[in-house]
Formats: sequence, C-alpha cells, structure tokens
Amino acid sequence: MKDAKSVRKIAEGAKAASRLLGSLKTSHKNAILREMAKALIESKSYIMKANKKDLKKARDRKLKSAFIDRLELTDKRIQGMADSINEVAKLEDPVGTIDKLIKRPNGLRIRKTRVPIGVVFVIYESRPNVTADCIALCLKSGNSLILRGGSVAINSNIAIFDVLRKVASKMGLPKNSLNMIKTTDRKAVNIMLGLEGTIDVVIPRGGESLIKEVSRKSRIPVIKHYKGVCHVYVDEYADLNMAESISFNAKLQRPGVCNAMETLLVHSEVAPRFLPSMAKKFIEAGVELRGCPLTRRILKRATVKPARESDWRTEYLDLILSIKVVNSLEEAIGHINKYGTSHSDAIVTENREHAMKFLTEVDSSSIYLNASTRFTDGYEFGKGAEIGISTDKLHARGPVGVEELTTYKYVIFGNGQIRK
Amino acid sequence: MKDAKSVRKIAEGAKAASRLLGSLKTSHKNAILREMAKALIESKSYIMKANKKDLKKARDRKLKSAFIDRLELTDKRIQGMADSINEVAKLEDPVGTIDKLIKRPNGLRIRKTRVPIGVVFVIYESRPNVTADCIALCLKSGNSLILRGGSVAINSNIAIFDVLRKVASKMGLPKNSLNMIKTTDRKAVNIMLGLEGTIDVVIPRGGESLIKEVSRKSRIPVIKHYKGVCHVYVDEYADLNMAESISFNAKLQRPGVCNAMETLLVHSEVAPRFLPSMAKKFIEAGVELRGCPLTRRILKRATVKPARESDWRTEYLDLILSIKVVNSLEEAIGHINKYGTSHSDAIVTENREHAMKFLTEVDSSSIYLNASTRFTDGYEFGKGAEIGISTDKLHARGPVGVEELTTYKYVIFGNGQIRK
Repeated sequence: MKDAKSVRKIAEGAKAASRLLGSLKTSHKNAILREMAKALIESKSYIMKANKKDLKKARDRKLKSAFIDRLELTDKRIQGMADSINEVAKLEDPVGTIDKLIKRPNGLRIRKTRVPIGVVFVIYESRPNVTADCIALCLKSGNSLILRGGSVAINSNIAIFDVLRKVASKMGLPKNSLNMIKTTDRKAVNIMLGLEGTIDVVIPRGGESLIKEVSRKSRIPVIKHYKGVCHVYVDEYADLNMAESISFNAKLQRPGVCNAMETLLVHSEVAPRFLPSMAKKFIEAGVELRGCPLTRRILKRATVKPARESDWRTEYLDLILSIKVVNSLEEAIGHINKYGTSHSDAIVTENREHAMKFLTEVDSSSIYLNASTRFTDGYEFGKGAEIGISTDKLHARGPVGVEELTTYKYVIFGNGQIRK
Repeated sequence: MKDAKSVRKIAEGAKAASRLLGSLKTSHKNAILREMAKALIESKSYIMKANKKDLKKARDRKLKSAFIDRLELTDKRIQGMADSINEVAKLEDPVGTIDKLIKRPNGLRIRKTRVPIGVVFVIYESRPNVTADCIALCLKSGNSLILRGGSVAINSNIAIFDVLRKVASKMGLPKNSLNMIKTTDRKAVNIMLGLEGTIDVVIPRGGESLIKEVSRKSRIPVIKHYKGVCHVYVDEYADLNMAESISFNAKLQRPGVCNAMETLLVHSEVAPRFLPSMAKKFIEAGVELRGCPLTRRILKRATVKPARESDWRTEYLDLILSIKVVNSLEEAIGHINKYGTSHSDAIVTENREHAMKFLTEVDSSSIYLNASTRFTDGYEFGKGAEIGISTDKLHARGPVGVEELTTYKYVIFGNGQIRK
C-alpha cells in the first residue's frame, strides 16, 4: 500500500472484476449472502477478539463513551449484521431489470436496462457494521467494492472483511470483487480519489469535515450528504397532540443522527397553545432551547436562549433545539429552503392544500407529512440497509440501497437498421 | 454582467423561479411550448436578420465552411426548431409521476416522486438551434435555465431567446425561469461554476477542450461526454452484408459527429472475406484507413497505413478509420472497454449467445445489436430532442431528454408515525 502503483493495482483489479459481476445470477449472489450471514455468526469469537483490540486502543486514547459504544461489537450486534445481510438477500435484484422499453417506427427496440455502477469506493469512520452492510449491498447490486475504514475500528473491520471475503472466494465470486485498504494513512485515499474512470463512485461516510475533504479532492463523482439540518413545521391546521409526539420523537429518539430535528417551526396561530407544553417536555428531557424573539415572548424568557442567525444553520447532533415562530406556510417553506440541507423535513397539518404545497415546494430529498423525520433510513424505507444517505440533486437521493447502486444503459436491438 | 454580484443575481433569480416551476400544470407548459413554436415561425425574418450578422462575422473571420454551415439558419431550419418544440410538447410530462410506491408495515406510504432538478446551466458553442432545444426541454421538465452560447452565434442566440422568452412572459411562466448570459467573456462562466447549491447541474456542449475545462473548474455536478470513440464489431457469426451496410453507415452518414464509428473490429475468421470489399467501399468514399498488422496483411499494404497505439484512442470526427482484426469476442470486448469512451458501440452477429455477452459486458451507455451507432440521439430514441449526450456512470446516460432532466424525492405520508 506504500506506493501509487499498488493502490492503482487494487483499483484496476476491482474494475476487472466489475466486468464480470454484472452477469452473476441472482440465485448465486443470494447464496453467497446467506453463507456470509452464517459465517459471521460462526466467527463471532474471532471477530470479537479483534474488536477487543480496537476497544482497548480506544479506551487508552480516552475516546468518548458514545464513541466507544458505537465501536463495540456484542453478540446481539453481530447477529444484527447477519440479519441485515439476510435482508439484502431477500430484496429484489435490480440488475438486468428493464426500466423502459421503447419501440421505434424503424423497428429498433431500445431497452433501458439496469446495470451495476462498476467500482464503489467507501470511506468510513468508526462503526464496524458498515463493513458488512457495504459488502452485502455491493454484492447484491453487482458492484466491486473498495473499503477504507477509519483507524479506530481497523482490527474489527479487517476481521469482518476477512470472514466475508473467504466465503466469497469459496463460493466463486470473481477475484478482486471485494477489497479493503488495510492501512489507514491518507496517501492511499488521495491516490484513489484521482482514479477517475477506474473507480466510478466514492461514498464518504462520517463527519462533515471528512465529507468536505473528500468532495474537494475527488475527481470521481461523490454520493454524499454534508449534514442534516432537519425541520418539523407545525402548521396552523396541525393536530397539536400529533405535532407534540412527532416533534419530541424527531428531536429525542436519537439526537446524534443526521435525520434528527434541529429546528422546530411553529405557525403563529397555534404557537401560544402549542409551545408552552411542548417546551416543558423538551426542558424536562434536558434539551436546551434557543428561540426567535416571538418564541421568547410566548415562553418564559429564562428558559429559552435567543437564537442567532447561525443557529438556523447548525446541525447540533445534541440536546439543543432552535425554535422559530412563522406567520405563514410560505414563511416556513422559505426558511427550510434557505437554511435546510435537503435532508429530511416534515409538516404536521390536517389541511390537504397546505400539505401538498409544502410537499411540492420544499426542496428536500425526503419530505414527510404527519410523521417523524427519523424514518429516513434504508431499513425503514424497505431497502434492507443503506450504504449512505444522499442530499445531492443527481442520481441517488435519500437512503442509498441496492437499487441506487445501479445505473442504466440503453441496449438497442436491431436487424440491420442504418440511419437515413 | 461585469461583476460577480450580477452573475449571482441571475443564478439566484433562476433558483427562486425553479421553486415555482415544479407545480406548473402540464397543459400550461404545453400551451407555452406550442405558442413558442408559432412565434419562431412568425419571427423568422427577425431571427434571420440577426443570423446574417453572425454569418458575416464568421465569413470575415474566415471560419471553415462546415462551421458556417452549422451556423446558418434557413427557412427549413427554423421550421425544424419549431417542429422540435412541438414534439417536446407532445411528450409525457415526467414531473409528479411516481416511480415507486412503498407501503411500510407501520402504515407509512413512501412515494418516490419525479421532480425537476432545479437550475440547469448550459454552455454551448456554435449551433443556434441548441437555444430553442434547451428552452423547450427545460420548460417541459420544470427546470430553470441559464444559457451561455458561444460568441460565433451570439446574435442568432439572442434573437431566438428573446422571441421565446417574450412568449413565456406573456403566458405566465414564472419570472427568471429563462435566462441568457448575453456577453461572451469567460468571467461570468467561471463565477457560475462556483455557485454550488444555487445551480444544480452544468451541461457543457462542444469540443473536448471546452468540456474538460468546465469539468475541471466546476464545483457543480456536470453531465457530459468528452468524446465518442465508437466501435462496430463484426463477429465471426455476422451477416456480412448487414455488417458492411452498418459499418458504412456508422462511419459515413455523418462523420463529424460523436456517434460516428472511429474503429472497426473484425473477427479473424471472417476478416479475409469481409475486409477486402469493405475496404474498397471506404476507400472509394475517400476514407483513409489505418490498420493493425493483420489488417494490413489481408488488405493491400499500400491502401492501409499502420495504426499506432494512439489511433485506438482517437476520435477522428473525419474521413479516417482505424481497423483491428481480433481473434475472439472476448478480445473485441476487452478492446472496447479499454479504448472506448462508453458512448455508442455495436456488434453485428447472428449468434444470440455472443450478442448477449457483448451487450452485457461492454460498458457503454448505448450499445447496439445489428444496428448503426448513429442512432444515439434524443430524437431517434423518441425523446423529441436532447440537451446533450452523457457517458457518465451516474444519473443520466446516453441522450439526455426531458425525463433525464428530472430527479426524484421521497414524499412520505403518515398519520402520526414516530420511530420506536
């Protein structure tokens, strides 16, 4: 891994393998997946031994307990990884399906056909289950995979990877379909990001700074989201009990994730009735509130700090919430389109016209009527797992699963047609 | 247009308009399109007067006659532009259509819904009809458009744009939906290419150097193809009459375009029977041949120059053809995947197994069985027109029409669901 040549060799091997993966039979892929799930369970003690090394290192480095929690593999978590692989085995295989059949007057039959993207390069940070999820999703979608995990979980990642690749090679998956960069220096990543044409897509998973750096350096298309500044808008026609339950869930069910609510927008008509009891619940749950002037007029000023302009743009990922009272649906939509990150936003309303206007005009990849933003997730969307979440405008948006890991090509059947 | 501020203002105006375009009724869009087609015909003399200025300038600058031919607007060509707009009016409207409906056990209904991309920025060179095509395609797909044409056709472009925008504004298209940068200095383009988040996609149309420059500078996703090194492979099981007719058409029907054949691959089993008469036809048509050693052994050496390694990578766009004899289907596929540009490639064969292997394993965006590569074109694919052709792996591939100018978002309907 020391020089550019060996990095390029990995990428070229993955490319060569990808040429063969597109014609792999679905039954073959599913059989490999099921064997992989079994092997994970059978190798539990081997994987947990590797994980213990990472945990020891992390504790020695005095990393935060939330961090160590994400890193730790338990019986249940390894079972969870295996379940997830079995879920992916059950999904429909998109490769080879025909999106559209166009018959032309000259007799040409044009099939818009789903094909794998090619070579997928995933850069990730601390959670070892990402290793298994990526392998399952890329195998099912017929893509070659190059994994590059963070240093914190390196032993766990290598152990999981080795177990799964052994199954793959025993069961006839083309050589070099699954690859892992087993060192954690940045050099290899930087070289990879220049291999336009060999690697087809880069998926960075982790903090905003990692993703920004990858996007800046990469000559290869990147599927990504920088951050999730997600909103719940409580409309003047909202069912206020439902609004309270959704807002509380969106903020607190798991505050540290990208689809958690960061800003609550409330219509001025209902704010005086809605905000006092809602704020009480949040404060009891330990949430710090930061409000606009109107919010602070309605609530006890002492319980709500003034929100600054920067608050509307901040992904707290923490027990902090900004609150703004708006005077119209249009103002809510305008606020979200200005400060939001196109991740996940919700409206709570019983008014159909308001709902449709919001759902149409808010420019987010996942947009909810009367439900919590916390559902933006590959599993919750029925995709088995996800390789990432995208807020881009092109190709994949929202949770990225097996289907989004494919693209299409036009296959044209003729019987001698020439152009006049 | 002199400073960054005014450029940014155009982009922001386009963005604001794009928020409204997604909910425009299909019938309204189609009515505007039909009026635009009419207005083009009615303003023929106005447009041709502007075109004469461009032609004079081009002749003064002693540009090539092929170039002047592309620039010139005639009665017939203006009629062609109007016809093309009417074709786009007849196409189905993709906006709002539901790609997929997912019902979840918790009652959530997830609609994967087609939406416009947002703001499209097209940079193009000499053909004035591109102005009308882009306006029609973006209007139908609900996108805001910013056009920036080359200096050669600037008067024609402005005339066409002004005629069509007048119709748009008279018929209630949101203000700032259609925009043109009417100066031709590079500064405005460079500023635009940095407006990530405001402009959603850039489509450069023109020579390879323009496209490379745009791709290098842009922070916004680019839909593009650099060049088309297209192949026809004559298999050992080919109908040789069909192979001759397709090869001749692919090279000569219009040699200067991206989907014309640049390299002919012939299986060694049929090369001695196929190549002599084929070569004769090409030479009679004025085509210079460059062959591999085997080709030169089969044909008279004097009629075929030796092909160099660089020939296999060259898009001649001219009366030059490289020829290679291969010993197997696999060698043909390997050659195309190595030297091709994922644009358009064809196999001529009567063997179904060979056909399917080629169609699956060749990594091109448009791939033909027994037909000429010259059909890769928005109109020929039934898309009315095209805003460009893409050889990228993500989002749009092949001819880019109304449908490819949309993306999707997930619209999720709940009745109070929260995540457990």
